[in-house]
Amino acid sequence: MSELHFTVGVIGLGLIGGSMALDLRRRGFAGKTLGVEKDPVAAEAAKTIGLVDEVTDFEDCVRRSDVIVIAVPVGTAVKMVTRVLDMFGDFSTSLEMTGRSLDMTKIVIDVCSTKEQICKATKYHPMRRQFVSTHPMAGTEYSGPWAAQPGLFDGRACIFANSEESSPKALKTIEKMYDVLNMRPIYMEAAQHDVHTAYVSHISHVTSFALALTVLDKEKDEKHIFDLASGGFSSTVRLAKSNADMWVPILSQNHDNVLHVMDTYIEKMQEFRKAIADYDEDRIRELIAEANRIKKILR
Amino acid sequence: MSELHFTVGVIGLGLIGGSMALDLRRRGFAGKTLGVEKDPVAAEAAKTIGLVDEVTDFEDCVRRSDVIVIAVPVGTAVKMVTRVLDMFGDFSTSLEMTGRSLDMTKIVIDVCSTKEQICKATKYHPMRRQFVSTHPMAGTEYSGPWAAQPGLFDGRACIFANSEESSPKALKTIEKMYDVLNMRPIYMEAAQHDVHTAYVSHISHVTSFALALTVLDKEKDEKHIFDLASGGFSSTVRLAKSNADMWVPILSQNHDNVLHVMDTYIEKMQEFRKAIADYDEDRIRELIAEANRIKKILR
Repeated sequence: MSELHFTVGVIGLGLIGGSMALDLRRRGFAGKTLGVEKDPVAAEAAKTIGLVDEVTDFEDCVRRSDVIVIAVPVGTAVKMVTRVLDMFGDFSTSLEMTGRSLDMTKIVIDVCSTKEQICKATKYHPMRRQFVSTHPMAGTEYSGPWAAQPGLFDGRACIFANSEESSPKALKTIEKMYDVLNMRPIYMEAAQHDVHTAYVSHISHVTSFALALTVLDKEKDEKHIFDLASGGFSSTVRLAKSNADMWVPILSQNHDNVLHVMDTYIEKMQEFRKAIADYDEDRIRELIAEANRIKKILR
Repeated sequence: MSELHFTVGVIGLGLIGGSMALDLRRRGFAGKTLGVEKDPVAAEAAKTIGLVDEVTDFEDCVRRSDVIVIAVPVGTAVKMVTRVLDMFGDFSTSLEMTGRSLDMTKIVIDVCSTKEQICKATKYHPMRRQFVSTHPMAGTEYSGPWAAQPGLFDGRACIFANSEESSPKALKTIEKMYDVLNMRPIYMEAAQHDVHTAYVSHISHVTSFALALTVLDKEKDEKHIFDLASGGFSSTVRLAKSNADMWVPILSQNHDNVLHVMDTYIEKMQEFRKAIADYDEDRIRELIAEANRIKKILR
């Protein structure tokens, strides 16, 4: 494979996979892009939109790609990464039998929102060093090939989990790849990643889902929701549009951390509830002033 | 006063009052704008930015203005509207004593986020018909004259609460005023307004404050919050930047409705918690799919 003209195969042509394929091709990291998409409607759409050069099947994609990006929901991704590493093992064996070089140059990466399970599941795989586990922290509340967009990753952070378990060469290639996507690399233990994302990402989704459920439950008149929803409500409830296929496995895999954060969150809601119920305006003011500290951290 | 060249006096030159003064003057509804701002720094800023033609004191503003906009936090606003109506009463008496027309043309409006208390407090005031109670549903998480901006109200909804208690003439003038601001009028009972806004506005703020508190409490390393916060977290926590001076009286005045919504919300969080704790992926999926219905209502 030549320096910056890899064949990149993307498994799962949704928001993340599709956007990644677009920019890697446009910006020259990929000389060719292959895509795999099990949903026939989405596959057809990906072709029409031109997210990849070619839509093919899983085996063909793994065989022909230098870099394979697994961009499917996290439950499926765990199994799929292992399957790709198994195939790498088989390729190695074939190469060995024909007396050719043993140097495996293929790399597989995942882009999942939880990292501990996928790193655990692959830890002792003989091909582990060809796997780089990443989490590009970008996205929108929309999903599918229709949601893919150029520039999605620009300026955002990308987590590399347990990067010491990857070969330096594989790691370097993927660092280059995310550099082309204009992402800032952050290195972290998988377990540490899952704690932090429970706080700054997963809980936001749960609170947003709960908010949508509350409003839909009580405000039966949908016209009123539409009429009265100001910008504040729309932005708070935005994540409630997020896809179940993606979020069920995240919440399930990051079970312990998410529950722990939810408990803290429910406690904070109870503190607010008590202050309001007691007409304790000083305490409400204190809680709001404390919450306002978030201004210093986020623009 | 001439058809579209009213003198508009705005009491409270913050985000709402300041933005309103700007557009009413720019768009010709106001021939002159007066402003009152008790905070000397904010008053100086309002002058420098040029939010109004003239900054003056309360009495002078009420005396000289045709339309007086009370744009201060809701606790203060209740007292202030009554005080303005008292002054209207005095003016009427003076007019009567000098044998001039009794026709009171001055109007006072409020722009508060809760409507029941202000409507109750003014219900039996002899000058009640010169008061129009409104809630222009626009805003940002920022406050003060620095946050004022042209076009803030364009395309948003404006609630008129208990509009049958205003004189038809006063109501017509204020309808025209909001029409100039490009707002859609919605007519509602004050009590009904407070129930609906508890759902689509007040609860969003409480959930956002609680989210900020949770993250600030647990994630001691602020650099991590900054690095890892993706767009989703930022938008969900955005309202946590909102000002205590504004929100303490709203939560306190809309006490019963807000507590009722918070209870429903906490129940929904508990349902999610249970589904996650039980590894009940089918139930998590159901809850998310149900929450996704918000997509049909909000863009």
